[in-house]
Amino acid sequence: FPSYKPMKVSMSQNQTSWAATINSEVEAHIKQALTGRNPASVYHPMNHLIFEIPRSMAPALCIAACESVGGEKDQAIAAASALHLMHVSTYTHEYLQLSDQPKPKPMPHHVYGANIELLTADSMVPFAYELLAAMDDPTNTNSDRILRVMIEIGRAVGSQGMVNGQYLKVRCLGLDGDEPCEKGMVDQVFEKKGGALYSCGAACGAILGGGTDEEIEKLRRYGLYVGMIHGIMVYDAAIKEKRLVKLADDLKYLALKELEGMKEKNVEPLWSLIDGISVFLRVQKLQFN
Amino acid sequence: FPSYKPMKVSMSQNQTSWAATINSEVEAHIKQALTGRNPASVYHPMNHLIFEIPRSMAPALCIAACESVGGEKDQAIAAASALHLMHVSTYTHEYLQLSDQPKPKPMPHHVYGANIELLTADSMVPFAYELLAAMDDPTNTNSDRILRVMIEIGRAVGSQGMVNGQYLKVRCLGLDGDEPCEKGMVDQVFEKKGGALYSCGAACGAILGGGTDEEIEKLRRYGLYVGMIHGIMVYDAAIKEKRLVKLADDLKYLALKELEGMKEKNVEPLWSLIDGISVFLRVQKLQFN
Repeated sequence: FPSYKPMKVSMSQNQTSWAATINSEVEAHIKQALTGRNPASVYHPMNHLIFEIPRSMAPALCIAACESVGGEKDQAIAAASALHLMHVSTYTHEYLQLSDQPKPKPMPHHVYGANIELLTADSMVPFAYELLAAMDDPTNTNSDRILRVMIEIGRAVGSQGMVNGQYLKVRCLGLDGDEPCEKGMVDQVFEKKGGALYSCGAACGAILGGGTDEEIEKLRRYGLYVGMIHGIMVYDAAIKEKRLVKLADDLKYLALKELEGMKEKNVEPLWSLIDGISVFLRVQKLQFN
Repeated sequence: FPSYKPMKVSMSQNQTSWAATINSEVEAHIKQALTGRNPASVYHPMNHLIFEIPRSMAPALCIAACESVGGEKDQAIAAASALHLMHVSTYTHEYLQLSDQPKPKPMPHHVYGANIELLTADSMVPFAYELLAAMDDPTNTNSDRILRVMIEIGRAVGSQGMVNGQYLKVRCLGLDGDEPCEKGMVDQVFEKKGGALYSCGAACGAILGGGTDEEIEKLRRYGLYVGMIHGIMVYDAAIKEKRLVKLADDLKYLALKELEGMKEKNVEPLWSLIDGISVFLRVQKLQFN
């Protein structure tokens, strides 16, 4: 996992536009929540990282899943914002300069010192939960959904999810950052990192939009596949490994199968998130043309 | 803030017993929630840090505040556990070995590498929120209190609270760890670090125990004073600074005033948390004997 390429280069124009619109709305939601907070010395680096780190597709998945089960975008915007904050926090800590790593990690955004990056990322997690808790309406009719979403997000970013993925990555990369991952471990990293965040995003969107248990689980699996595909797509070595290219293709097929069971719903935005991803264009060129 | 002494040495026997009992119950609650979780490779360092880091008084304050307004211990045990996890996470990151700090920080518990410590502390925060969300009862009658507590805890540990305190500490210590803090900044560190966590602990206990708004604010202020006193107490240089010794004494007086307004309630456990603290014994020896 030597680098994390910006999404834009790997998406079709159509997909970029839709996800980019959602990301703008998520950023506007976060910006509004940050307005007027003090001290500036703490919020300045927070702002910087929130708007500079390469985007994930978790917020877009969350909104698309919510709308696919008949919900409104407004019901999921706080959760989508929380997912972005979790992604930024995790990404920042992943590229933090620790003393037992002699080589600098290739993060393009080291504007602040390690101390400030550490603290700023720490501050984003409670801020994310604050956004979630604050979406409780005055009549408390949605508190049970909010608490359920909090448990989902906690599990996705915690020890059973992204932290586990990062832990596996640390182990398989070794401390000098050069040892290659074993095959099985690479797949687990895809599953636990992007997979956990994305599947959580889709499930949370479905929960907040009032989806049935069956729809929630369908969308959770869809998110998992999209997250793993995205992980493979931004993994530099993937293109050299036919096994991974094949895996990404299999995952795309599984994802399509989940959506086929929801044909009466608006699943186009969901599908657009992987339909145009260029790793598959490469797959087509490499194997199917 | 060169070191953080274990509480035991600075407490009277009585206070130690009560807080120690609460801490054991909090640890049992966390242990039960962790039982059976996988993978062991992630949960082992989590267990280690949760049970090895010097305790704060925030969980005891939370339980004592809950009981003082007529609530039951069970109503606050999950919040007390979450507060301990937040404290452990913050403490671990505070003593993390970063590449821009050439001198090792004097944390007595560096059993794991910086990478693992970073991730383990990260995993504790969502786990804390999960414990909070999971205390929702089946009839959802307490969801509004839980969401309110989550917002309180988010603010206490985030950019407006402990992260701000740590940021000030980083700034005033400088990167080599030797520059002394300016006076005003030291006080702000006391206020934002221990002060924010402890005042949140007391306020959350009062919220969960069903306290009135007035009681919640009284207990919030009480917690703030206790947190600042504790901060001064474990600050090695405090004993050399008469100004800080005086400040701690003033804070103890203010804390007493808050409890005097709650005379009909059981405030003894609350008062016991600072009554026997030996910085005041030293104060008495130095200035009042």
